[in-house]
Amino acid sequence: MSAPKKVVLAYSGGLDTSIILKWLQTEYGCEVVTFTADLGQGEELEPARAKAEMLGISPDNIFIEDLREEFVRDFVFPMFRANALYEGLYLLGTSIARPLISKRLIEIAAETGADAIAHGATGKGNDQVRFELAAYALNPDIQVIAPWREWALSSRTKLLDFAEQNQIPIAKDKRGEAPFSVDANLLHTSSEGKELEDPAKDAPDYVYQRTVHPEDAPDTPEFIEVTFERGDAVAINGEAMSPATILTALNEYGGKHGIGRLDLVEGRFVGMKSRGIYETPGGTILLEAHRGIEQITLDRGAAHLKDQIMPQYAEMIYNGFWFSPEREMLQALIDKSQEHVTGTVRLKLYKGLARTVGRWSEHSLYSEAHVTFEDDAGAYDQKDAAGFIKLNALRLRLLAARNRRLK
Amino acid sequence: MSAPKKVVLAYSGGLDTSIILKWLQTEYGCEVVTFTADLGQGEELEPARAKAEMLGISPDNIFIEDLREEFVRDFVFPMFRANALYEGLYLLGTSIARPLISKRLIEIAAETGADAIAHGATGKGNDQVRFELAAYALNPDIQVIAPWREWALSSRTKLLDFAEQNQIPIAKDKRGEAPFSVDANLLHTSSEGKELEDPAKDAPDYVYQRTVHPEDAPDTPEFIEVTFERGDAVAINGEAMSPATILTALNEYGGKHGIGRLDLVEGRFVGMKSRGIYETPGGTILLEAHRGIEQITLDRGAAHLKDQIMPQYAEMIYNGFWFSPEREMLQALIDKSQEHVTGTVRLKLYKGLARTVGRWSEHSLYSEAHVTFEDDAGAYDQKDAAGFIKLNALRLRLLAARNRRLK
Amino acid sequence: MSAPKKVVLAYSGGLDTSIILKWLQTEYGCEVVTFTADLGQGEELEPARAKAEMLGISPDNIFIEDLREEFVRDFVFPMFRANALYEGLYLLGTSIARPLISKRLIEIAAETGADAIAHGATGKGNDQVRFELAAYALNPDIQVIAPWREWALSSRTKLLDFAEQNQIPIAKDKRGEAPFSVDANLLHTSSEGKELEDPAKDAPDYVYQRTVHPEDAPDTPEFIEVTFERGDAVAINGEAMSPATILTALNEYGGKHGIGRLDLVEGRFVGMKSRGIYETPGGTILLEAHRGIEQITLDRGAAHLKDQIMPQYAEMIYNGFWFSPEREMLQALIDKSQEHVTGTVRLKLYKGLARTVGRWSEHSLYSEAHVTFEDDAGAYDQKDAAGFIKLNALRLRLLAARNRRLK
Amino acid sequence: MSAPKKVVLAYSGGLDTSIILKWLQTEYGCEVVTFTADLGQGEELEPARAKAEMLGISPDNIFIEDLREEFVRDFVFPMFRANALYEGLYLLGTSIARPLISKRLIEIAAETGADAIAHGATGKGNDQVRFELAAYALNPDIQVIAPWREWALSSRTKLLDFAEQNQIPIAKDKRGEAPFSVDANLLHTSSEGKELEDPAKDAPDYVYQRTVHPEDAPDTPEFIEVTFERGDAVAINGEAMSPATILTALNEYGGKHGIGRLDLVEGRFVGMKSRGIYETPGGTILLEAHRGIEQITLDRGAAHLKDQIMPQYAEMIYNGFWFSPEREMLQALIDKSQEHVTGTVRLKLYKGLARTVGRWSEHSLYSEAHVTFEDDAGAYDQKDAAGFIKLNALRLRLLAARNRRLK
Repeated sequence: MSAPKKVVLAYSGGLDTSIILKWLQTEYGCEVVTFTADLGQGEELEPARAKAEMLGISPDNIFIEDLREEFVRDFVFPMFRANALYEGLYLLGTSIARPLISKRLIEIAAETGADAIAHGATGKGNDQVRFELAAYALNPDIQVIAPWREWALSSRTKLLDFAEQNQIPIAKDKRGEAPFSVDANLLHTSSEGKELEDPAKDAPDYVYQRTVHPEDAPDTPEFIEVTFERGDAVAINGEAMSPATILTALNEYGGKHGIGRLDLVEGRFVGMKSRGIYETPGGTILLEAHRGIEQITLDRGAAHLKDQIMPQYAEMIYNGFWFSPEREMLQALIDKSQEHVTGTVRLKLYKGLARTVGRWSEHSLYSEAHVTFEDDAGAYDQKDAAGFIKLNALRLRLLAARNRRLK
Repeated sequence: MSAPKKVVLAYSGGLDTSIILKWLQTEYGCEVVTFTADLGQGEELEPARAKAEMLGISPDNIFIEDLREEFVRDFVFPMFRANALYEGLYLLGTSIARPLISKRLIEIAAETGADAIAHGATGKGNDQVRFELAAYALNPDIQVIAPWREWALSSRTKLLDFAEQNQIPIAKDKRGEAPFSVDANLLHTSSEGKELEDPAKDAPDYVYQRTVHPEDAPDTPEFIEVTFERGDAVAINGEAMSPATILTALNEYGGKHGIGRLDLVEGRFVGMKSRGIYETPGGTILLEAHRGIEQITLDRGAAHLKDQIMPQYAEMIYNGFWFSPEREMLQALIDKSQEHVTGTVRLKLYKGLARTVGRWSEHSLYSEAHVTFEDDAGAYDQKDAAGFIKLNALRLRLLAARNRRLK
Repeated sequence: MSAPKKVVLAYSGGLDTSIILKWLQTEYGCEVVTFTADLGQGEELEPARAKAEMLGISPDNIFIEDLREEFVRDFVFPMFRANALYEGLYLLGTSIARPLISKRLIEIAAETGADAIAHGATGKGNDQVRFELAAYALNPDIQVIAPWREWALSSRTKLLDFAEQNQIPIAKDKRGEAPFSVDANLLHTSSEGKELEDPAKDAPDYVYQRTVHPEDAPDTPEFIEVTFERGDAVAINGEAMSPATILTALNEYGGKHGIGRLDLVEGRFVGMKSRGIYETPGGTILLEAHRGIEQITLDRGAAHLKDQIMPQYAEMIYNGFWFSPEREMLQALIDKSQEHVTGTVRLKLYKGLARTVGRWSEHSLYSEAHVTFEDDAGAYDQKDAAGFIKLNALRLRLLAARNRRLK
Repeated sequence: MSAPKKVVLAYSGGLDTSIILKWLQTEYGCEVVTFTADLGQGEELEPARAKAEMLGISPDNIFIEDLREEFVRDFVFPMFRANALYEGLYLLGTSIARPLISKRLIEIAAETGADAIAHGATGKGNDQVRFELAAYALNPDIQVIAPWREWALSSRTKLLDFAEQNQIPIAKDKRGEAPFSVDANLLHTSSEGKELEDPAKDAPDYVYQRTVHPEDAPDTPEFIEVTFERGDAVAINGEAMSPATILTALNEYGGKHGIGRLDLVEGRFVGMKSRGIYETPGGTILLEAHRGIEQITLDRGAAHLKDQIMPQYAEMIYNGFWFSPEREMLQALIDKSQEHVTGTVRLKLYKGLARTVGRWSEHSLYSEAHVTFEDDAGAYDQKDAAGFIKLNALRLRLLAARNRRLK
């Protein structure tokens, strides 16, 4: 592996990625291109431009982009079509953002003639894997630099010393250690590490940043209607919205009602278990609503097949295999199922819980004529059930007869 | 199929099964044995004895049994080891009770020399399938009588006429039609039909029988600790309890806090969709707690395999294949995984939601030494991640190179 | 169900379906439309026309069609993209033909204004299910008549009597009972029943109709090259051919070399086990060749996912769910995987066996640079394997440490 | 990682592992324990003892063991219960031997107080992963030395120089390069590398070492009967044999008839594709026979579930996860299914092909009474099929009605 000449860095403008920026310049003597994306993390991006310029990046090499619509439309929504949950509970808020960042890093590398990319993920986590697998899948020749795996800045003190030696400004509140580490985007906020490392201890209240405590949420439930077309949310209470707008609005509803908190110990792809506190207010409502609309518009055979492959699909995304043939194959299967997942779901939001209480659709498969306890006018012949049961039972009866014979 | 000589009837003591009892006597001229089980449905059983006697059943032919411990120990708990959810949401409260009833019907048939069993499930639902598949699996030669599929009593009026003609007492509140149909046992209460048949309309408040409205639940959260051994709950707040006792206690906690309500449209095995309102207060807490303890005690490979096969396992139970080789094979797989699922989970109960907030165990696989953001004293070498990613990426890079070559 | 007015009959021209034709006329007094398809079963179709006319069918109501290309292109080839095998061994030769026949029956019913279709499958087999599920999936209001389940012609004698009474000519060789029952199309010939009903006894040599005995096959192997494009065979030995032509040619190769015989006891959808003797000469070669080309052109992740879902896909086809959302979803997944399954396979054919001995492709993922035992010029860094193994082992080590600790 | 003090080496007695032995002594100055196992590879073991002694290993540190029975009983047979095939074709002959070797290495390390093990697998292959994952799963603190990933002996010349400098005798035929690399045990022989690296080119005849060319096999078929008990082969032609004896005998039959050759390009766990020539004579017969006996003794639901999980089971073994919870969970599922897989299969062996031609069992589920084309005396009521189909079709009809309505 030859030394990189030009590196595109996933740059937040914060202290850590500023140190990385400077370290890349000093360690490799290479040109650095910064890429800062708005994925809905709720931070201003322009300070990142100023800081990059201050660190000597030429304006041509500073890329700042609002990717919120692409993020929701091409990553979040396709994933929600699958009702994806990792280990039964986790809505994959961090996992789903990484491939988009890598995609843009690789595209910007191609535009700017860079031969490498760099990211600020550590060597213990899943994010390094997600960044790098996506990058290699999109450009097999790209060089990936992960400073946290390489450098000697192994303690907070050494990092701060390096920053000071290199005239990187250090905000006052970064002098001390943060009590935990945070990642955020339009789908979720995750908190982990340090204060949260003992999975037996309740997470302190101040960890939660995006949802009110259910105890502080309104004492009156709120009802909303979410409309879907072909598996994707397109309107709230009848008002059409773009993907990012709809997720933003759902986040507001969810945040207000304390919805979407999760305290999870999960199995990382790199092998150990870790504990995270996740807040996914809008996503939690969206999953509930999507299941709600599928209940009446999706055939049972289709629904069960989807449920069956979902854990593997979620695992692929968690492990960083978004840009893999197997994820694309499962996506083709999932998308095929969503052709008629169109209609509206009514939800009750109250004190931490979003619950489907009604759903309707032109595409409904629900047939009151068939299910009714009343006279069904011949829609269903109960006598058919006898034959249905008899033939489903046949192999079980042959088994029972065999086993009895051998006793 | 020859006429049955002696029939064991699943008998609740209610109007419908009393009509069936009489109908069996008159239609087939056969001896009837009644079987009434306490599965935790919350009704007195002795009135069923009196009523059976009044309908001419000899005391020897009246079987009344408390099956609550067997129900929870041998059916509910094994199912919860799997974290089973049908169509992502339903805890299978009705489905899991049916095979036990069939098992006792078949055993009583053997004891009493009966050649047939009978049940009161209609020809449109899943329960007929569950009763009958279980029965045939346990006795391939048994005859099964399902009066609702056979008789001419096709309207409420005809049923009441038949009852009157046969001196079957009709409670006043049974004169009119019930606004919906209810099934209950220690795990859940389900309501469906009639008033509930329009899935667009909110279920009226009075449908819920077992859980308070979240709005009426206590304004202060309650915290409990559930202890597991080998996958099964064994204690609450440190107090050891039997399976049925623990589920009863969890039901009280859940009911008080409005936990475990579900409004679902589901795909029935017989082909149509139906809408049910389910209340599973204790089961909802139990699922959350079981996932919580698995988070620290179950290996990732084991957990993911379990998640992957769960939908099929749930489908088997829903469809009535409890006594089938494939369910037993999956159970063997699941039980094998639970050897170390031992430890305690702390849950917060509040206004409809049960949420894990802590968990600890002697059997924990969580290693703070590995995951820590602090110095890990060499437990984990971050450089290993580079090779890990490189080899995971290799096939993706070969793919990307191939695809680029062909452009 | 009202009496049918006009019925489209799947008509072979043979004795049994001629009896059905007449029975429909006499039983229901309805107009009959005959549909006779060439699916490569190797019989002349024009005699069917003459016979239908003789039985009073108006020329407008006689449909005779060559469906061989559609059969292979739209049914056989999509299925072979999946490497589908039922119960590990069966190439689904009968199963895959039924949905096409139903599709045409339904289309002809629409064209001719018929309100029903009829088929000659018995009530014990899978074919009735396949015909009818496909028909209902394509027209939910169609009426399906299955005479074998309805009529009183319960013995060979009664059938022949009925034929004689209705002036249906009986070929001499049909007077006696056939020693077994045969179904054939371009993909396979199946034989079952009667002489073959004891699964312990070798099938007699004369059962095999389409393949020479391996002992009689040429003593010299033959080598052929099969070329694929996007998962479908398109040429043999460099000569481009249409789908049906290519399968016909492969059948000739296979038949000559005694390839594709299978003696199987299988589990029928209706519940019992049955024994069949199958000959699938071309299909057996095609499966081997398709696996051969996938070996170098299909990514491991894609290939393993395909293998994993294959048994369910095969089961769907066997059970008659070709026209179901779940089959279409799996097909979308499978087809997505085949984009680069393009290239050529070299096979050795000899005495019953077709074996891949070479394969090459522009789309190959095989990288001699990576795999070589020789110096690989840095394509692969063996040190990466250490980290790869370390992190794959991490969870196993944590498990082992836990288990040791608890001893 | 501290320097190892005592290392247990998987030692074949050949040149390469002798070089490793000496390299361990010189590189680490550590004590070496040699472990040489008879897994049926067909080589004398005593020369390995002499050579180890000559290289300075004390007799106490030389372990030579015949593991053939354990290998077949505890590894091969459990795997064959699953009908395991990797990528549809490979019988996993190398993969299944590795965990046993690791198990003994770890056990000997415990006995001898060694703190490390070493193996001779290269850094490009699967075997390093299999050896090491198994080792770590059995002893999380063991140190593993893989000289091929560490040393500087990067060419044949350097290896031979090292051997000469260290007085390691070099057999004449080892001076030149072997044309390909071979691994063998009682289950199979694999050949790969060098001459075989071009997957387009036929493997030369001299590669095959264990099976005659089908062209040279007897011109007359041979028939054998294999008897199973609970899924494992226990007798041939009525003669009871131990596991290793039975596999040895099947190897003789297979070898004689040219059965079990496979030319495969497979996806390695480490990411690239490789080409192997495999000979698995006895195993190929065993798989066919096992499928044969399952056909009549295994329920359809059980069989389909087994088929469905098989590819993942095979992948686990291929990837080296034999000692993992997920493999053990699948094994529990598989073993549960084999309780009645008892009976006898008759096979025809001829010119490369082993084919089931008959099977019988006290445990058979095959019911001639149900399947017969003749009068079945009421065993099966064909009218049941109508209801069975109607209810299976119901959801498809509701779908079709919905789709038609929306047009």
